[in-house]
Amino acid sequence: MEKSDVVVIGGSAAGIPAAVGCRRRYPEKKVTLIRKEEQALIPCGIPYIFGTLGGPEKNLIPDAILENNGIELIIDAAGEIDRENKAVLMAGGEKVSYDKLILATGSLPLVLPIPGIDKENVFTVNKDVGYLKNMLDVINQAEDIVVLGGGFIGAEFADECKKNRDNNVTIVEMLPHCLQLAFDDELCIEAEKVLTERGIKILTNERVEAIVGDEKVSKGKLASGQELKADVVIVGVGAVPSTELAKQAGLRIGTSTRAILVDRYQRTTEDPDIFACGDCVAKVSFFSGKPTRIMLASIATGEARIAAANLFETRYLGLGGIGVFSTKLGDLALGAAGLIERQARGDGYNVVIGEATAPNRHPGGMPGAVSTKVKLMFSRDNGVILGGEASGGVCVGELVNVISACVQHRMTAYEVSLFQMGTHPALTASPMVYQLVNAAELAVKEMA
Amino acid sequence: MEKSDVVVIGGSAAGIPAAVGCRRRYPEKKVTLIRKEEQALIPCGIPYIFGTLGGPEKNLIPDAILENNGIELIIDAAGEIDRENKAVLMAGGEKVSYDKLILATGSLPLVLPIPGIDKENVFTVNKDVGYLKNMLDVINQAEDIVVLGGGFIGAEFADECKKNRDNNVTIVEMLPHCLQLAFDDELCIEAEKVLTERGIKILTNERVEAIVGDEKVSKGKLASGQELKADVVIVGVGAVPSTELAKQAGLRIGTSTRAILVDRYQRTTEDPDIFACGDCVAKVSFFSGKPTRIMLASIATGEARIAAANLFETRYLGLGGIGVFSTKLGDLALGAAGLIERQARGDGYNVVIGEATAPNRHPGGMPGAVSTKVKLMFSRDNGVILGGEASGGVCVGELVNVISACVQHRMTAYEVSLFQMGTHPALTASPMVYQLVNAAELAVKEMA
Repeated sequence: MEKSDVVVIGGSAAGIPAAVGCRRRYPEKKVTLIRKEEQALIPCGIPYIFGTLGGPEKNLIPDAILENNGIELIIDAAGEIDRENKAVLMAGGEKVSYDKLILATGSLPLVLPIPGIDKENVFTVNKDVGYLKNMLDVINQAEDIVVLGGGFIGAEFADECKKNRDNNVTIVEMLPHCLQLAFDDELCIEAEKVLTERGIKILTNERVEAIVGDEKVSKGKLASGQELKADVVIVGVGAVPSTELAKQAGLRIGTSTRAILVDRYQRTTEDPDIFACGDCVAKVSFFSGKPTRIMLASIATGEARIAAANLFETRYLGLGGIGVFSTKLGDLALGAAGLIERQARGDGYNVVIGEATAPNRHPGGMPGAVSTKVKLMFSRDNGVILGGEASGGVCVGELVNVISACVQHRMTAYEVSLFQMGTHPALTASPMVYQLVNAAELAVKEMA
Repeated sequence: MEKSDVVVIGGSAAGIPAAVGCRRRYPEKKVTLIRKEEQALIPCGIPYIFGTLGGPEKNLIPDAILENNGIELIIDAAGEIDRENKAVLMAGGEKVSYDKLILATGSLPLVLPIPGIDKENVFTVNKDVGYLKNMLDVINQAEDIVVLGGGFIGAEFADECKKNRDNNVTIVEMLPHCLQLAFDDELCIEAEKVLTERGIKILTNERVEAIVGDEKVSKGKLASGQELKADVVIVGVGAVPSTELAKQAGLRIGTSTRAILVDRYQRTTEDPDIFACGDCVAKVSFFSGKPTRIMLASIATGEARIAAANLFETRYLGLGGIGVFSTKLGDLALGAAGLIERQARGDGYNVVIGEATAPNRHPGGMPGAVSTKVKLMFSRDNGVILGGEASGGVCVGELVNVISACVQHRMTAYEVSLFQMGTHPALTASPMVYQLVNAAELAVKEMA
């Protein structure tokens, strides 16, 4: 039996930073990472394989990050956890003992229980290089592509499948809007506009009830009765926590989240020597403290850092998930941090909104200038920021991170309106119209 | 005599938001803005007139912002303030009475007291359309351009003067590095590398002692004895607060800052009905509370908002200047928020540094990916963030704003390492290597 101080199961957005974090914090410990995939894919990069990048081999996490940090890598599936003897039994028969164990087993794509889902050329978003290579080949030859689900994965897949190809791409979304779980209606509509302009057909309030075809899919049957031609169906309707191993080991699983239960130190509730992080773990909201289903690589890495820091001494305390999302569709970047208006009202808040739009360069004639919008939301009672959204140029990716910093510190509208930003003609909006500050100031005025 | 409730003197980065802020906060008040220029220029945009934009008329603040907010505009120079009768006397003879007055008179370019400085084709950075038009014509025909000063203005001017032109551009900087007052050495060196690669010659530890020529400049004489051919000299060595009007009105001027003294409400220390904001005003450091000489449009707009809010009821309290700078030279964006290491050590801090570099997209093969570096600095004693710097792609402009938000809330390295960022392949670094969080985590480790 091999011996390790720390064993990490999973080699993606949670497993790697957990292993690296452990080496950083406890350099004297031997760390072993068990991963079942020969090659690890960057999870958020998967849609980009199909257009921008051109192949799964261009979307790999280099193993150098493990080697450079002195982390042992075992490529095998973890088959069983022997808690009594503190060891992991691999599918290949090998055994590794641990002092501390970190589960970072991630999630699996949700498979829709509809007839025909197992037909050829119906794909889910599997994190497997071979599977994705085949998927790319099929997409390259397809004329009619149907994407089930208009969330981030679905919208990004549709956008990428359309790139440099003469094909028909259709998104089928159950809800009234694409991206509706992440954004308020205005941003959803902006996103849909971009997708439509790119030639993508969007069917909302609609479901595929059955997938039709012989061996291969040939069409989808919609709830409305309509039929959709389809050479390829991509199922991007969400993911479920991968918890088989944890269940087998007798660790507790949340009833609503169906994910492994941990405390704020990322320690499992049953076993002080087993930690868990990432998509396989139940999260609580930074706001309500209630269980939430956010699955984000960024949250996974944060939880991994917390788990790693706490392995041998309790050092870090999770804050709950704020939820910071961003994406780019066509040339439009969109993002949100914290609650959106729909969620905040649902939680019973009386909200005050401030909105501001301005070019993201100044003067507006600077090259690359794009109108960029910020919407901020505060609790009317105490002025504390609840969240914000932004859309416009690529720096929206960092702009929502500015909002996230304000949220993490529960800044008030007054404080955000005093925010001291740096501005530059070639990099940001003009200081006179800097969207974050103006939106906050309008909210302050509204509250006075 | 015309009557106004509020009179604002100055129509740039401080005056406009002061007037707009007043209309926002006190919509029943009549607001009059006095500006001596026929057309108002965007101050930070001035260097870009000479390359990217192509003319001063493309760098104007549209008067629509005043019209849309119901602000009266008088184009005339304010000649005198009659505090007893609460009126401003214009150079043109007109008089406007006020209930509250806001001085936003800005700054004037510093003129070097060296022989020959008054020769033809020696330019300072005057905020005047006609002057800049002439300057552009001369630069377009120049073969040898010498820029005095390698701060932001000097470096940006040099970069812009080189664009689409076959000429020789030389920066002469007194200090050991360009941008040394804003950045630590590493970033200065990065900036100098870019400028040099763009074909710009940089002379540091060097001064122009005299400007030589007949009517027009023909060369500069350096302290080292060397002579520099020069068809044009651009003097970008700083600016001095424009305080003539305030002095004449008997308002107090700081001895070290040479700027109008105000309290944290932006109210002048002598007259509760006169407020002041922007480059003409003395600032204190967010850190030490000591007078500081930062002149930034972004700070001006913040002070203007505070002044406006406090006109008729005290509502807002300034925090002192954090100092958030950013620029773009060639394709490299650079920025800093808060103290730099040199300043912090000068203030007596025992600092802990965390640094992290990663591509600003993920995987690194995504289009537009640029290596982007973040350096964060914390007080070793209590872990509180003192400042940070970043360099890389254009989103550095917002990335330093994330750092600024952390500084404003005096977050600790521990808190920054728990920062919940949003990440996306096309917009940001990978969550595993997100620079801000990794830099903070390394600092936490260093402090443990």
